[in-house]
Amino acid sequence: MDLHILDHRLRVTSIAKNGLANFTHPLIKLIFLRNRTRCKFFSLTETPENYTVVLDQEGFKELQPSEHLQVESSIWLPLNVVSNGNASSSSQAVGVTKIAKSVIAPLAQQHVSVFMLSTYQTDFILVRENDLSVVISTLEEEFNIYKEVGGESVPVQCQDVSNGLQKNGKEAIQHTVHPVLIPKNQFCVMSLDPDTLPSIATTLIDVLFYSSSPKEDAQSSSSEDCVKFFSFSLIDGYISLVMDTDAQRRFPADLLFTSSSGELWRMVRIGGQPLGFDECGIVAQISQPLADSDISAYYISTFSFDHALVPEEDIVSVTDMLQHQRKEPATS
Amino acid sequence: MDLHILDHRLRVTSIAKNGLANFTHPLIKLIFLRNRTRCKFFSLTETPENYTVVLDQEGFKELQPSEHLQVESSIWLPLNVVSNGNASSSSQAVGVTKIAKSVIAPLAQQHVSVFMLSTYQTDFILVRENDLSVVISTLEEEFNIYKEVGGESVPVQCQDVSNGLQKNGKEAIQHTVHPVLIPKNQFCVMSLDPDTLPSIATTLIDVLFYSSSPKEDAQSSSSEDCVKFFSFSLIDGYISLVMDTDAQRRFPADLLFTSSSGELWRMVRIGGQPLGFDECGIVAQISQPLADSDISAYYISTFSFDHALVPEEDIVSVTDMLQHQRKEPATS
Repeated sequence: MDLHILDHRLRVTSIAKNGLANFTHPLIKLIFLRNRTRCKFFSLTETPENYTVVLDQEGFKELQPSEHLQVESSIWLPLNVVSNGNASSSSQAVGVTKIAKSVIAPLAQQHVSVFMLSTYQTDFILVRENDLSVVISTLEEEFNIYKEVGGESVPVQCQDVSNGLQKNGKEAIQHTVHPVLIPKNQFCVMSLDPDTLPSIATTLIDVLFYSSSPKEDAQSSSSEDCVKFFSFSLIDGYISLVMDTDAQRRFPADLLFTSSSGELWRMVRIGGQPLGFDECGIVAQISQPLADSDISAYYISTFSFDHALVPEEDIVSVTDMLQHQRKEPATS
Repeated sequence: MDLHILDHRLRVTSIAKNGLANFTHPLIKLIFLRNRTRCKFFSLTETPENYTVVLDQEGFKELQPSEHLQVESSIWLPLNVVSNGNASSSSQAVGVTKIAKSVIAPLAQQHVSVFMLSTYQTDFILVRENDLSVVISTLEEEFNIYKEVGGESVPVQCQDVSNGLQKNGKEAIQHTVHPVLIPKNQFCVMSLDPDTLPSIATTLIDVLFYSSSPKEDAQSSSSEDCVKFFSFSLIDGYISLVMDTDAQRRFPADLLFTSSSGELWRMVRIGGQPLGFDECGIVAQISQPLADSDISAYYISTFSFDHALVPEEDIVSVTDMLQHQRKEPATS
């Protein structure tokens, strides 16, 4: 398998719920006006806590410093696993499950924090730029590693990284087992042709920027057992949308498409308290048992919490599995 | 002829050029998200100086006080002349020309300030609420006057206004003859079906909110002899757009429509220094000679200057007429 270190230097930021209006101008530019910006990696995820915005340096320049904007101090690099046909795995599962044992677990063992961003098209594994040499030395046995430079994939040679090699210790640490929340909403993971993005602009603007303001003709349909979660990303020209079925109904049915049979997903939100960015092994804690059971999963980290999406038909077994995990003594 | 006092109480405001980003959130809501607002009268006009926003009280609530927002202190009421088939005028001209002698001139003589807002559909004559009794007593001989109340047109009886009657003095005052500027751009006055507004949303957002920021693939086509002017209004569900041909080319040709034969208009900007709101007779100064020559004209007041639009083929004679007016001694 190939691992690509993509040519984006990313910032992970959070906009306060009550501060979004101040950022409507730059965000609409980044989402809809491709010829006004050089930003090539943009992701916006609304959760009940805040809006998590992950974007490259060109996009980050658009966000004015503000009391409403929190910025994680590191530069993050997105990694991407490309199956080159030689995959030995017999797994049919997709998403983070596919890379749980080959990428997520080894990085957790090396105490490398990861920030996951699953999209319709692929799963991005964000790692800190400072951890890159550890990442490469950890994964080079399993993967052919390439660095994307100006559109070209350049193989990463061992000697390129030997200088920076600073493999973290392997001592076992006691990972916190975080509480999980399983809201009732059903989610879909969708995409659309970027050329049709203008057709859904007003609906998308409404959902992203005005969903918290009251509607004049409102009939509120969201139950208390549901959790607000909406994710939009525009990465290298590809659009991905994760939304619940309530939000989906507001979009024209003929423009958004899902993979295969319009499958629905349920969410597992990880974390009782905001997780921060330094703890490692959180993704591994969820993705390893999913991999053991060969259950597909999307995984979206946000500024405060992590979110796994599993197929609706698997939510009972996933719930059982997580309850079991939480009764056992925590292990590394 | 009938004169309708419409059921909107309006504020006239101005947003500074460098402050627009702070108002993107409420303005996009007012323009595109009809089910999120009760605002029924909204107009936004960009000029080189600022953005003039005229809107009803429901819309005004959306604008947060800010150093970038100037608000004229009065409540303004829109008047509207409806030709009821008994019109004695043989004039073929449209726009403000049609009401120059019957409305504009008499109000100027009574020292009533007017703020004009021509749209594709009609011409709104805004007067201060405090001037209403003078307006009614001035125009009641010429017009059947109706007040719109909750969708009903109620005839205004003389006794309704006799209490407030405070006809201003008729003494002649020396009106300032303001300098005029005649930019080179050609303008069109257009409309579109409100149901197709979402189709042009991203283009309209780009033109309205991002035209001053550099474009990544830019070829700047605006000449120094042109003046930035773009007006959008959404009034009682009707959309009107005034833009120059450079802006027009950015919109899909099949959605916007102009009256009759796609006629083009040239602009006369009135005022060397910002005009303020207290001087009266400015509209009359331009519209009377146009009426004498039976030349159609749209007329759009903004926070700083007034703007008349005349048919392209008449611009030479209008220019001559205005030059002549500026050489003569000023008259009341």
